[in-house]
Amino acid sequence: MAAIEVPKTQWAQVLEEVGGQLKYKEIPVPTPGPDEVLINVKYSGVCHTDLHALKGDWPLDVKIPLVGGHEGAGVVVARGQLVHDIEIGDHAGIKWLNGSCLSCSFCQTADESLCPKALLSGYTVDGTFQQYAIGKAAHVARLSKDIPLDGVAPVLCAGITVYKGLKEANVKAGETVAIVGAGGGLGSLAIQYCKAMGIRAIGIDGGDEKRAMCDSLGADAFIDFTKSKDVVKDVQAATEDGLGPHAVILLAVAEKPFQQATEYVRPRGTVVAIGLPAGAYLKAEVFSTVVKMISIKGSYVGNRKDTQEALDFYRRGLIKAPYKIIGLSELPKVFDLMLAGKIAGRYVLDTYK
Amino acid sequence: MAAIEVPKTQWAQVLEEVGGQLKYKEIPVPTPGPDEVLINVKYSGVCHTDLHALKGDWPLDVKIPLVGGHEGAGVVVARGQLVHDIEIGDHAGIKWLNGSCLSCSFCQTADESLCPKALLSGYTVDGTFQQYAIGKAAHVARLSKDIPLDGVAPVLCAGITVYKGLKEANVKAGETVAIVGAGGGLGSLAIQYCKAMGIRAIGIDGGDEKRAMCDSLGADAFIDFTKSKDVVKDVQAATEDGLGPHAVILLAVAEKPFQQATEYVRPRGTVVAIGLPAGAYLKAEVFSTVVKMISIKGSYVGNRKDTQEALDFYRRGLIKAPYKIIGLSELPKVFDLMLAGKIAGRYVLDTYK
Amino acid sequence: MAAIEVPKTQWAQVLEEVGGQLKYKEIPVPTPGPDEVLINVKYSGVCHTDLHALKGDWPLDVKIPLVGGHEGAGVVVARGQLVHDIEIGDHAGIKWLNGSCLSCSFCQTADESLCPKALLSGYTVDGTFQQYAIGKAAHVARLSKDIPLDGVAPVLCAGITVYKGLKEANVKAGETVAIVGAGGGLGSLAIQYCKAMGIRAIGIDGGDEKRAMCDSLGADAFIDFTKSKDVVKDVQAATEDGLGPHAVILLAVAEKPFQQATEYVRPRGTVVAIGLPAGAYLKAEVFSTVVKMISIKGSYVGNRKDTQEALDFYRRGLIKAPYKIIGLSELPKVFDLMLAGKIAGRYVLDTYK
Amino acid sequence: MAAIEVPKTQWAQVLEEVGGQLKYKEIPVPTPGPDEVLINVKYSGVCHTDLHALKGDWPLDVKIPLVGGHEGAGVVVARGQLVHDIEIGDHAGIKWLNGSCLSCSFCQTADESLCPKALLSGYTVDGTFQQYAIGKAAHVARLSKDIPLDGVAPVLCAGITVYKGLKEANVKAGETVAIVGAGGGLGSLAIQYCKAMGIRAIGIDGGDEKRAMCDSLGADAFIDFTKSKDVVKDVQAATEDGLGPHAVILLAVAEKPFQQATEYVRPRGTVVAIGLPAGAYLKAEVFSTVVKMISIKGSYVGNRKDTQEALDFYRRGLIKAPYKIIGLSELPKVFDLMLAGKIAGRYVLDTYK
Repeated sequence: MAAIEVPKTQWAQVLEEVGGQLKYKEIPVPTPGPDEVLINVKYSGVCHTDLHALKGDWPLDVKIPLVGGHEGAGVVVARGQLVHDIEIGDHAGIKWLNGSCLSCSFCQTADESLCPKALLSGYTVDGTFQQYAIGKAAHVARLSKDIPLDGVAPVLCAGITVYKGLKEANVKAGETVAIVGAGGGLGSLAIQYCKAMGIRAIGIDGGDEKRAMCDSLGADAFIDFTKSKDVVKDVQAATEDGLGPHAVILLAVAEKPFQQATEYVRPRGTVVAIGLPAGAYLKAEVFSTVVKMISIKGSYVGNRKDTQEALDFYRRGLIKAPYKIIGLSELPKVFDLMLAGKIAGRYVLDTYK
Repeated sequence: MAAIEVPKTQWAQVLEEVGGQLKYKEIPVPTPGPDEVLINVKYSGVCHTDLHALKGDWPLDVKIPLVGGHEGAGVVVARGQLVHDIEIGDHAGIKWLNGSCLSCSFCQTADESLCPKALLSGYTVDGTFQQYAIGKAAHVARLSKDIPLDGVAPVLCAGITVYKGLKEANVKAGETVAIVGAGGGLGSLAIQYCKAMGIRAIGIDGGDEKRAMCDSLGADAFIDFTKSKDVVKDVQAATEDGLGPHAVILLAVAEKPFQQATEYVRPRGTVVAIGLPAGAYLKAEVFSTVVKMISIKGSYVGNRKDTQEALDFYRRGLIKAPYKIIGLSELPKVFDLMLAGKIAGRYVLDTYK
Repeated sequence: MAAIEVPKTQWAQVLEEVGGQLKYKEIPVPTPGPDEVLINVKYSGVCHTDLHALKGDWPLDVKIPLVGGHEGAGVVVARGQLVHDIEIGDHAGIKWLNGSCLSCSFCQTADESLCPKALLSGYTVDGTFQQYAIGKAAHVARLSKDIPLDGVAPVLCAGITVYKGLKEANVKAGETVAIVGAGGGLGSLAIQYCKAMGIRAIGIDGGDEKRAMCDSLGADAFIDFTKSKDVVKDVQAATEDGLGPHAVILLAVAEKPFQQATEYVRPRGTVVAIGLPAGAYLKAEVFSTVVKMISIKGSYVGNRKDTQEALDFYRRGLIKAPYKIIGLSELPKVFDLMLAGKIAGRYVLDTYK
Repeated sequence: MAAIEVPKTQWAQVLEEVGGQLKYKEIPVPTPGPDEVLINVKYSGVCHTDLHALKGDWPLDVKIPLVGGHEGAGVVVARGQLVHDIEIGDHAGIKWLNGSCLSCSFCQTADESLCPKALLSGYTVDGTFQQYAIGKAAHVARLSKDIPLDGVAPVLCAGITVYKGLKEANVKAGETVAIVGAGGGLGSLAIQYCKAMGIRAIGIDGGDEKRAMCDSLGADAFIDFTKSKDVVKDVQAATEDGLGPHAVILLAVAEKPFQQATEYVRPRGTVVAIGLPAGAYLKAEVFSTVVKMISIKGSYVGNRKDTQEALDFYRRGLIKAPYKIIGLSELPKVFDLMLAGKIAGRYVLDTYK
């Protein structure tokens, strides 16, 4: 294990006040604590959550000054004295969950995303919009060296999240999942994870472009909600016995799809809500929920095991996540495009540009 | 197996039109089909559902003319040619789920209450407000002879339902369940099943009488929602680590307790809705449902295995269900009391009075 | 639903005494009971179990006279009065589990293969080596009309059995299963079910022919136990982290592979024994079983739900089961080949030849 | 959080060579690392495993010089810089699993006892036969201050182990577990945990004294294998439907009970082996294991969550573990009694005597 030289300063995008402008500037390279590693971030994805952090949209306070970003992939360049299972030179990823206490009842049962002391990258601790970032060693994603560091960046957030949602949906191979918002970034990953797991996928989204995309990824059926006269009926008809899908993965942001989902899901089925915005409510008719014995569940981000599993599907070439590369210095442009709703796929930042 | 003589006619309470008056009259004793048994009903409980059937409150049509009732306990007096595992003279119970196809994908997986062809006692087929009732042999509850036929009647509906709800709640011994409506008939059974299963119970209800009842049944804590200034906080404080109960069993009929339940339940916890009225909606804030990874589930009636298990706890003396006996001829009085909200515990009909 | 004419007599292979010769002769066509269907068997597979029945190898007595066979596919031509969910003209399959009580605690929990009153086709009741066979309606496999009746015959026994074994192994997509005896009939089905379920498969068997077969079916690795110097080490090395497969499916008939399996399976892994011969013992070192927290399980035949699921994978073209067709009249030849160990793949009988 | 003064030296029982004599002497008090706590051990239980360590009975090497012991209860007196969730003055326990990497795939899934880098108290790291012992903060058992430090010592090993075994047995309230070796130290704890969890317990052991003990703890039945003419038949007869217990917990050290267990366990039942000695083999007839779909499992020690749950039952007064107190200086006497088979219940060392 050869030492890797680490500079004293680095370039970063820094937010100095909530709602303010990003500053692209040189800042000190941090030093890892005993249970941490320092990662030379090569690429970082940009997620909608980063925009929420910037603007202070959520009830939870962000750290200030803040280096955002939580989809970083790079090379381990330093480690604390307690770190024994990751080597200098290993590839690793920093994800939303930067660290957790590893001791509370949630951490004890592999639900570390529920840890009350969870550290969130680019939100409560500095993230990956810089060249050198800190991650808790127990939490950084281990990346096999045959995984491309640029391509994996979006998988570190979106991929893990939909994979976790599918696990929470409790479907098995041969069963059917409806994916609401199938044509978007998360949705297209969800279809691919379904196929890799032997699960049948019904894509639900609007427009021919979305349909074409779902078809090309192998969706078994597609319901265009802009054209369907009865979405509930059409989704059920798309399952072989007409009883509806075994589970629904909700990636859409409106309330209406939620209620519909409880109507078309199969009795004993599961509706999984993933990452909907603050302020929205889920609502379902009690009578049919009881009589059909439906489950409605929230699914947050994956734990460390989910992370390694989701990445392994990617490593094996079963998952593609389209992205464009742009320089870290140009991050504000990405946010402008995001605000304008003009991003298809993911932007990935090259931290050396 | 000695034959038991069966009369040609019997006394019954018959509804001849929806919303009409019950007629107490003599009707023919039915003959069981090849896969059925004829049960000489000795006692039948009276449930709120019977009142709904009478008045045609629900979207699902009732059989007309109808003999209501779905909590009947008695003696098997005849059986069809295919019935080999229940003997003449055995004790048996008729419950809400009178029969199911036993072949559909739900019946195949022990979810027979979800069978699209389910027969419902006292609703889509004649029930137990008569002296001789038909039950599908595969579905009648087997009653050990040391079980009192009067006392068991309410267990056949309320007992099975709350037991099923607790199973669906997925809690294990040592964990905590909050029971909303703990002081009612279902609630008091729920507390007792909790204790028998090693589960800790927090009763939630209103008034000192309810509190006293919950205490006497062994509830580990009681929250009086009429006195609490912050139900959410108080329920969480009643759990040892302050994180809230592992599950919530909702027996109340209002919408507010539902929303509160998703607020005080522990992260990764489960909220189980049981038997709420048509027209009500369950509603929960999406953000916290996702971030806390909460499950919301409907639980309907138990399957045949749940039935036998719930009854076995009763047989072992671990469950008490208070009741008063009244003659079948006086059934309309029971409904009058029910409408007036004056029933505490259950009324059980003696079919020979 | 048009009636289909049924003849009074039919051709069958009949065993008149245990260990005796089969007689190919005309016998009466049976009449279905109220809960039964009569199936015009078009094709029947021939299984090793049929040979055991013929020779009286097992402790359980066979019916005499006996019509063997338990892999029959054909057309429903008559049904009893209680049968409502299968129509005259439907395609259906008869499998090893011909019927069960549907009422015992095992049937109640979808473990009907454990029913003490289970009826076994071609063993305790007449089977499919005849043109018209009886099946309990609740148990006959529903066959979609796009499933070829000849090809599906072997799936009705071997396919369901390995699929069930994989379910019992409790592995999920992305995990690895080692299949001992991967190059045989059951093994080749197991590899295909793994692929369809997103599970990685390590084939274990002997010889280049077996290796080629496993490779062609998509096995992720192959260990030739005739060439390996250390099977335990080699199997573990074939998994990416070197910890061994998550589960092992044991299709081999010897005792040694069983012990080896507990040595190379991953800690917390599961070893599933399927259909080993009477007289054999499974044996494992206690210390490592405890310290590695290994599970060892027996898996028998699938239940009705497993059956429909396994068939659905076949219908979708994901499973191929090679077979040769021969006339029912020539069944003794098949048994001769079987005794001589000269059968690769399955023989399927055309009941009209 | 007031600082607690810690001396420089302490009394300990030290083993200087495998198979040698213990030396009771003064040694330095160790200093905790960043992720460790220093515990002032007040009491330590003595377990058979300690004797095995002393004599070098097992294939795994012990640390030399060694301070044995892995059932220590005391007060936290110092902590490393990374430790934030345990305070100076808190009560805590050191158990067999002193620490683990918290990062491997087993630690990630709450199976930290399977961690390849697990540290074992009194075996691979110094244990609790001293006044001041080190524990990894994430792993020390949190002890509520209403738990007596002497009484809890045996629970920290034996209690957790049987509780874990019951969880692995996968039985639910109302079901039946047979406990082989029910009259011993582990067995008596197992009966009590069963009762606290609503599980019915059949004690299996030899002699009237054992019977009386099992009866007094609330065992539902007792089979004396020294008097029974047919243990298999008698155990099955002790279950209400005669089908046998749902699970068997094997605490006995011989091979015969293991084979018997697979004979009397209910179809679909589970046989759990706990802590049997090296050299023993588990053996079961393949045919019945498959046809009855039995599971055979090894269960090692509990994880951190199991630990807290098992302790909570103790704290609530549901579990009693009889013990005698003796001074740390007299430890060799305890081992002499152990070798002579003269210990009933547990010896607990007072480290200040």
